[in-house]
Amino acid sequence: MAIPRSPDSGAGIVLGTPGRPWYRGRVISEHPLVVQKFGGSSVADPDRVRAVADHIVRTRRAGHDVVVVVSAMGKTTDELLRLAHDVSHRPSERELDMLLTAGERISIALLCMAIIDLGQPAVSFTGSQAGIVTDTAHGRAKILEVRADRLRDALAAGNVAVVAGFQGVSTTFDITTLGRGGSDTTAVALAAALGAQACEIYTDVAGVYSADPRIVPEARRLGRLSYEEMLEMAASGGRVLALRSVEFARNHTVPVHVRSSFTWEPGTWVQEEDPSMEQAIISGVTHDTSEAKVTIEQVPDRPGIAATMFRALAEAEVNVDMIVQNVSTADHTDISFTVPKEDLARTLEVMDKVVAEVEATGLRHDPDVGRVSLVGAGMKTHPGVAATMFETLAEEGINIEMISTSSIRISCVVPAGDVERAVRALHRTFGLDEG
Amino acid sequence: MAIPRSPDSGAGIVLGTPGRPWYRGRVISEHPLVVQKFGGSSVADPDRVRAVADHIVRTRRAGHDVVVVVSAMGKTTDELLRLAHDVSHRPSERELDMLLTAGERISIALLCMAIIDLGQPAVSFTGSQAGIVTDTAHGRAKILEVRADRLRDALAAGNVAVVAGFQGVSTTFDITTLGRGGSDTTAVALAAALGAQACEIYTDVAGVYSADPRIVPEARRLGRLSYEEMLEMAASGGRVLALRSVEFARNHTVPVHVRSSFTWEPGTWVQEEDPSMEQAIISGVTHDTSEAKVTIEQVPDRPGIAATMFRALAEAEVNVDMIVQNVSTADHTDISFTVPKEDLARTLEVMDKVVAEVEATGLRHDPDVGRVSLVGAGMKTHPGVAATMFETLAEEGINIEMISTSSIRISCVVPAGDVERAVRALHRTFGLDEG
Repeated sequence: MAIPRSPDSGAGIVLGTPGRPWYRGRVISEHPLVVQKFGGSSVADPDRVRAVADHIVRTRRAGHDVVVVVSAMGKTTDELLRLAHDVSHRPSERELDMLLTAGERISIALLCMAIIDLGQPAVSFTGSQAGIVTDTAHGRAKILEVRADRLRDALAAGNVAVVAGFQGVSTTFDITTLGRGGSDTTAVALAAALGAQACEIYTDVAGVYSADPRIVPEARRLGRLSYEEMLEMAASGGRVLALRSVEFARNHTVPVHVRSSFTWEPGTWVQEEDPSMEQAIISGVTHDTSEAKVTIEQVPDRPGIAATMFRALAEAEVNVDMIVQNVSTADHTDISFTVPKEDLARTLEVMDKVVAEVEATGLRHDPDVGRVSLVGAGMKTHPGVAATMFETLAEEGINIEMISTSSIRISCVVPAGDVERAVRALHRTFGLDEG
Repeated sequence: MAIPRSPDSGAGIVLGTPGRPWYRGRVISEHPLVVQKFGGSSVADPDRVRAVADHIVRTRRAGHDVVVVVSAMGKTTDELLRLAHDVSHRPSERELDMLLTAGERISIALLCMAIIDLGQPAVSFTGSQAGIVTDTAHGRAKILEVRADRLRDALAAGNVAVVAGFQGVSTTFDITTLGRGGSDTTAVALAAALGAQACEIYTDVAGVYSADPRIVPEARRLGRLSYEEMLEMAASGGRVLALRSVEFARNHTVPVHVRSSFTWEPGTWVQEEDPSMEQAIISGVTHDTSEAKVTIEQVPDRPGIAATMFRALAEAEVNVDMIVQNVSTADHTDISFTVPKEDLARTLEVMDKVVAEVEATGLRHDPDVGRVSLVGAGMKTHPGVAATMFETLAEEGINIEMISTSSIRISCVVPAGDVERAVRALHRTFGLDEG
């Protein structure tokens, strides 16, 4: 199935001043601009904040303009969420955004102080001050516009600009948050709006790996990935970059460099496919055990039935992922799909009604599943990858419950307990540890 | 000496929309408006936040419109300051304001959630969103204007409005803080701008007392004080209300009610003097051990010398408090003054130069002093209060180092170790424990 596109992937977004196309807003400067984003673990304590400041100042002194995007320190967001739930049974979404945005406010201020201490002028900006204008969907707001004039002025005056990730201001002037992976999205959106040379995403891992190194110790760091590969990896369980930030980067051709704020070594570049390079058949194996499988049995095979089902789920704001419709037997068919485990209860509630409505015979669900995926741009031109994948799993005695494919990805849903073994076997079979 | 007036005491302030006098902005409503301000100890943990929410909702249901001003929870501000000093040797003032304002952001959001949980709509506002416009002096900004339209709209829509105290936005769109006692000032400024019936200041004490109850267990809660008495008490060490908020209240005739958020009992009303009531000769005894005494010896007795000295201190941003010039002997005089202990080093640095410049003979300082003051509006019409005070201290064997008076206050600087004994003796002599 196609990778879902989120509304702020930048398709219709306004970047720059209204009435001016965003690319006209690109900074004309002798200093090429770099956007550097630091996640919560990168600024978890004062020592880490000072280390990050030092890296930023080195980048600035090497001749770059620098815009920094920073997340809340360490576990701050979790602590604020806990406070919210201590105070309220069901915290107001508007107030939750007001609360959580305090986290990045703290980190931008501290990071600026540390940069200034090193003799480099720096100015912090909240999402609102940085011109990140969003819709009004609290907790999952989409960026509608980036009005980066204030950032441009700060850069022109010789400052490093430090921007709070994950947050913006809505069209009705309320504070919003962008939801999961929001700081990555902030960074890429600013890189696009300002015409940055690159968007560097600093994190606690050294880049994107051929598999999760906690499961496959031989996993290799990938030097280079296309946007499409990164999208498929993000969508199928690779946790390094948020899906929507990769979409945004692809739509605006922002080169993204994923690297470690602990080693500062070069990591993984995510950028446009380079046709001159030979592509690896398989770049990596990803896995995901966050979803549950739901099967509707014996659905009457009539047009419009699937539409009824998935419209009902969409209205309940359930994020359906894989959908597989099995071969129709006589005039009935089974439809299976996966949903995030936290949406399972809601899904079953909705589907109970739908099953009755469409006169299906049953509803089954299984939370104990996991998905294993192979991703690789070279797959397109190498038939037989799927067959090798299925054989490998068969040799391991692992039962495949669902299969779905895209042009550069094959995913199998297998029992949760078999996921790690499947990842290791596939990594070995496809020679990913050989480099 | 006269009580210093801070620039945001409201003399020339614009309240309400520019171009409209502020009093025209008073809410015309069948619900009389109350501003309730809660200090950090009142919202120190989730249980306290819920208790405060309950009180607010009761006030609302009793038929009032309610604007709430809240400080950062418990020790949040101290913790943020510690983080700043962990990260930077000398934190940028702009970034310090960005950092510290995270504290009230957390408390407004949590308090709103708790209010909403009780079925009462509520909306939080940062200082900026509430229209608190200040000058650009980070860390000690003065309120220039209150643009309360957004608050009025929120009230008109039936909400409780919860505003972050202590903060505003400068004329150059940077986040500012109002300095010590800033949340009280926010509350009084909003009460003035919105034409509130009263400004209730909730704190961890039950009101203003005739002396510090930790030193004088018999101290009584005062039911009523004039603005002038409260000003003198605040200026001479009473820590309940910040001086500048009382000035603001007096200048706009905002009745202030200081009360406890732990007992919710009526506390102390601070309002215009009522000539029909008999005034207590002495309302209370205050004390202050936060200052050090500096003496310049043998200053040539020429016009302009004192001006030279205090201009130099003002330029170094030292807050001089009491100033006493002793009787001139021949053509020289001694000048003593008090400064906050944290300003002592800077003061001595400045004075070293001044002493040479004006050809004085010496510079002495003593950090081990304290000030004891008697405050009472009835003092004006009762001669002999000063004499009784000095006799009382003499009987206790306490040496008086400096004396200064206003029409409703007498202050003596005494050795720090004698302060508590002096407070107890004066409280007893003036019969303040009798009620």
